[in-house]
Amino acid sequence: MTGRDGGADIGPIGNSPVVILVRPQLADNIGAVARAMANGGLFHLRLVAPRDGWPQERAWRNASGADRILDRLSVHPTVADATADLHRVFATCPRPRHIVKPVLTARGAAAELREICARDLRAGLLFGPERAGLDNDDMAAADALVRYPLNPAFMSLNLAQAVMVMAYEWWTAEDETLPRTLMTNETRVATKAEVDNFLGHLVAELDACGFLANRPKRPGMVRNIRHFFQRGEATEQELRTLHGIVTELVHGRRSLGRDEEAGG
Amino acid sequence: MTGRDGGADIGPIGNSPVVILVRPQLADNIGAVARAMANGGLFHLRLVAPRDGWPQERAWRNASGADRILDRLSVHPTVADATADLHRVFATCPRPRHIVKPVLTARGAAAELREICARDLRAGLLFGPERAGLDNDDMAAADALVRYPLNPAFMSLNLAQAVMVMAYEWWTAEDETLPRTLMTNETRVATKAEVDNFLGHLVAELDACGFLANRPKRPGMVRNIRHFFQRGEATEQELRTLHGIVTELVHGRRSLGRDEEAGG
Repeated sequence: MTGRDGGADIGPIGNSPVVILVRPQLADNIGAVARAMANGGLFHLRLVAPRDGWPQERAWRNASGADRILDRLSVHPTVADATADLHRVFATCPRPRHIVKPVLTARGAAAELREICARDLRAGLLFGPERAGLDNDDMAAADALVRYPLNPAFMSLNLAQAVMVMAYEWWTAEDETLPRTLMTNETRVATKAEVDNFLGHLVAELDACGFLANRPKRPGMVRNIRHFFQRGEATEQELRTLHGIVTELVHGRRSLGRDEEAGG
Repeated sequence: MTGRDGGADIGPIGNSPVVILVRPQLADNIGAVARAMANGGLFHLRLVAPRDGWPQERAWRNASGADRILDRLSVHPTVADATADLHRVFATCPRPRHIVKPVLTARGAAAELREICARDLRAGLLFGPERAGLDNDDMAAADALVRYPLNPAFMSLNLAQAVMVMAYEWWTAEDETLPRTLMTNETRVATKAEVDNFLGHLVAELDACGFLANRPKRPGMVRNIRHFFQRGEATEQELRTLHGIVTELVHGRRSLGRDEEAGG
């Protein structure tokens, strides 16, 4: 511990899984892990036998304000010691062989971790050292392995990136944001009557200027214009702007026409 | 371009979205972005006005073998130039204000990108500079914004982490891995008959040694033992090991018993 009390507020800390870095090598990575954890709402960090000892200034410098996670982490001599008070432990592992073990996707693991924590059990997530990954004894200490679905031709995943994916899935497992919404801020989506009102204005001016003078083609042309303006989910404010555009284009041409008549 | 042809194989390159880094500052981050892209099956990278020029050796050093992405990237003076040949552009953006725009989650964006690419349209993803993020003109050039659901109390997301989340979602949008499977490798899940056979062996030995001598309690004790061994989805190989354990424990005690009789 460095005894600091700095860094950013990182939000409420509930019963969330403990991230356990097993024999981490680079302090930079430990800092980046803390930042990724804060991004995804994971706040409890433990280190097992960090190669270069602890604390390391570089970790704080690379944490972008997620200091509280580093200030509060604990250091343990073994995986058994770091997991002794936990009820369920998952281990991230890219390519396990010759073992019998449940394997979860990151999304599957996040859903199960939410259930475990909702039952007031304590969960942990093991991440191996940068080069070697977790060894066979580490994996045997886990209830299940977590294997991310990623490009099998390029599985070299940075430690902080591995934590980021798991933290992101942890957060999104409880998130209910719609996949697509229209952000309207100060305005609102226009009603069909408002869209029709604008289209009536536009078509009247197009009739007046001769754009729709071809009578046989007129119904199809009007429909195509309607199709276009119905596609974009216009807002009330945007329709007012479009009304203004049509009016000004008409005025502009009339003025220009008068000038041309006057000048010509 | 550096003219190299090194680095790892990164898998087949199909019609996948172009990652566009707008005014990136640090070559280290550009390398880390390439690595994250390769992890998630994104292969096309473009830079708009990189602060320190291009190429930068540090990018290759930080790409962990994703050299092909860096070797092939293109540099552009403006966002308009970098997106000119694309049909659909999404912009990642943590906190847009005062604008009317569709907003997608990372998962929603990935699903739409898969649809766009399946229609043989070309898509791009804009990521802003490390400190400032995308500016208002950059966002106006996009069809939709992408906003990750993450801890609102700590939104400071590293550039390569932002690309990692999007690349991960791109990959998982087409992935069909089950959330939980039992990896059995050389063996297989045991049938109920095999589990019953083991339980019969165990209960017979427990009867023989007196563990189940309390007759009124015996049915409940046997059921509890059955509950435990039914919970873990045993494999055929593990049952053989358990048979062996029971047999050896019995033998061991019998030998010990004989020794005690002989010695006592």
